[in-house]
Amino acid sequence: MPPIPSPLAYIPFVSVENMMRFVNHFGVEKVLCELTDAIEADYRRWGEFEKIPRLASHSRDGVIELMPTSDGEAFSFKYVNGHPSNTAKGFQTVAAFGLLARVDTGYPLMLTEMTLLTALRTAATSAMVARHLAPAGAKVMAMIGNGAQAEFQALAMKAVMGIEEIRLYDVDLAATDKTVRNLRDSDLRITPCRSAQEAVEGAQIVTTCTADKAYATILTDNMVGAGIHINAIGGDCPGKTELHKDILSRADTFVEFEPQTRIEGEIQQMDAAYPVTEFWRVLSGDAVGRHDARQITLFDSVGFATEDFSALRYIYSKLQGTDFFQDIDILADPDDPRDLFGMLRRAA
Amino acid sequence: MPPIPSPLAYIPFVSVENMMRFVNHFGVEKVLCELTDAIEADYRRWGEFEKIPRLASHSRDGVIELMPTSDGEAFSFKYVNGHPSNTAKGFQTVAAFGLLARVDTGYPLMLTEMTLLTALRTAATSAMVARHLAPAGAKVMAMIGNGAQAEFQALAMKAVMGIEEIRLYDVDLAATDKTVRNLRDSDLRITPCRSAQEAVEGAQIVTTCTADKAYATILTDNMVGAGIHINAIGGDCPGKTELHKDILSRADTFVEFEPQTRIEGEIQQMDAAYPVTEFWRVLSGDAVGRHDARQITLFDSVGFATEDFSALRYIYSKLQGTDFFQDIDILADPDDPRDLFGMLRRAA
Repeated sequence: MPPIPSPLAYIPFVSVENMMRFVNHFGVEKVLCELTDAIEADYRRWGEFEKIPRLASHSRDGVIELMPTSDGEAFSFKYVNGHPSNTAKGFQTVAAFGLLARVDTGYPLMLTEMTLLTALRTAATSAMVARHLAPAGAKVMAMIGNGAQAEFQALAMKAVMGIEEIRLYDVDLAATDKTVRNLRDSDLRITPCRSAQEAVEGAQIVTTCTADKAYATILTDNMVGAGIHINAIGGDCPGKTELHKDILSRADTFVEFEPQTRIEGEIQQMDAAYPVTEFWRVLSGDAVGRHDARQITLFDSVGFATEDFSALRYIYSKLQGTDFFQDIDILADPDDPRDLFGMLRRAA
Repeated sequence: MPPIPSPLAYIPFVSVENMMRFVNHFGVEKVLCELTDAIEADYRRWGEFEKIPRLASHSRDGVIELMPTSDGEAFSFKYVNGHPSNTAKGFQTVAAFGLLARVDTGYPLMLTEMTLLTALRTAATSAMVARHLAPAGAKVMAMIGNGAQAEFQALAMKAVMGIEEIRLYDVDLAATDKTVRNLRDSDLRITPCRSAQEAVEGAQIVTTCTADKAYATILTDNMVGAGIHINAIGGDCPGKTELHKDILSRADTFVEFEPQTRIEGEIQQMDAAYPVTEFWRVLSGDAVGRHDARQITLFDSVGFATEDFSALRYIYSKLQGTDFFQDIDILADPDDPRDLFGMLRRAA
């Protein structure tokens, strides 16, 4: 008799195609807003999370990371690579997938692609922080670096913050053209610019998201006027930064998880005494966020495992009753848990 | 136009059902022999592996672990839980899946169930070590603990070592009955026993594989005669051991990766000065294995990431040209790697 896998053997798998169907069904801006709220809700219970340093395997061409966390009820991890040379080979710089599991049994609950989901959660995290740190009434964002993140950042800032104009700049004109094309129908005013300097003119929020694995200087000190909020995404691994040190000296800097950001963020340029505030402390009221209209706030974002946890739980919570997943048979489930061999034998 | 995922978007996934088909197609004993050789080949190039401590998330009921490693060309990790209370709920104590990836691009190559594969690789690792440490001409193995591992251990020792008789003991008679039933057609002489003492009579190899999360004493000193090889599988996490300390004092102990075994193995009972030999040193000729017919050798096995790496590469190497997998769409692959958003938009 062939074995009939029990329901215990299956978990839902969200493929890239199904993730696209999911996002297009609910609408990308609605998903970004809901993700922003989900991520903020988890930042508000920061103390409940087990914060494990990400596990990185570095090689000549890039890095492969495992990013786990747990709140005691659910466990999640993301597999993610970062290979700047991939683009030239026709691969994504960053590809990812993730898993949500139950802590009480250790059994997986859902497996999903996370290349798209990471782009969404990164933009949602930027928007979540900006809504607490950006100057009141911000309407214009400069977007420096017009790669795979650009449209997600623009739409999250529009949907969550009410941004009306995006000023685009990239060293590669084709990247800017692509972003203009993709945002055509978004109701955003799109202004392609010929320099970073031009892009930041009149912007209250400056987002930097470039891909070079180098100590780069995308923003220099003279470009940063009083009162702006800098959302720095691209300085996210050792040896990769985007901002001139002098900007850091003038800014109040907010981070996700300090021990990780000291290694991977813009602040790797500063000594250990450079003061930073973990962002959850702003939400809990333990720390002050923006206190002054002329203050420069900087979110030195490197990505943190709780954001993936929030994103995974959000997707999982909305899967029920949809067909945005397929069941995959990833768990052996013999009738008698001690009889793994009997299951194999009966399948013959 | 709906997006047609490119070949880059897909990776092979080996479900539980396909893993069973794979093993039954090639034959479980042949798979165990080939796995034994694959694991040994990788132990012989031990220095090439990045040995990362496993990442463990402990909770009241158990542990969830991520076990990564890399040889510079391929990266692998296994997700595995250990929840002793699961059996009572009808779940497996241990369920697992794993991934193989390319280091140069960071892209996954294969995803597979690993509950069955872990049972196979654990038995193959035991056999690999036994063929270097067990006394010459060993024909009888005692198997104490007749749970999910028992038949795999028995068949690996038969196929690799030429073991002819298995003497079974478990506190639960039903577990022994199950093992007797499953091994009926194996050409092994099967002897159920009423005590651990009775099981070890005449055995040259003693395998312990019990599941209690406790400092248990499955073997006491008086049961262990001169010259035997002990294959201790079940002492594999903090607070979980099977052997009386006095046995350790008399035995020469071999381990996989010392820093991990000091925390998780039988030797957690001993102080830090207790001498152990990493098994790869026996293969490389840096250390002596069995040097004396009266010597007691102990393999204090806790499982190590390189064994999973070897098992994943073995499965991957044999998948080509078979139908023991399905392709899953886990990787976003836009025409232009910078145009993730365009891919999403065109799918709408």
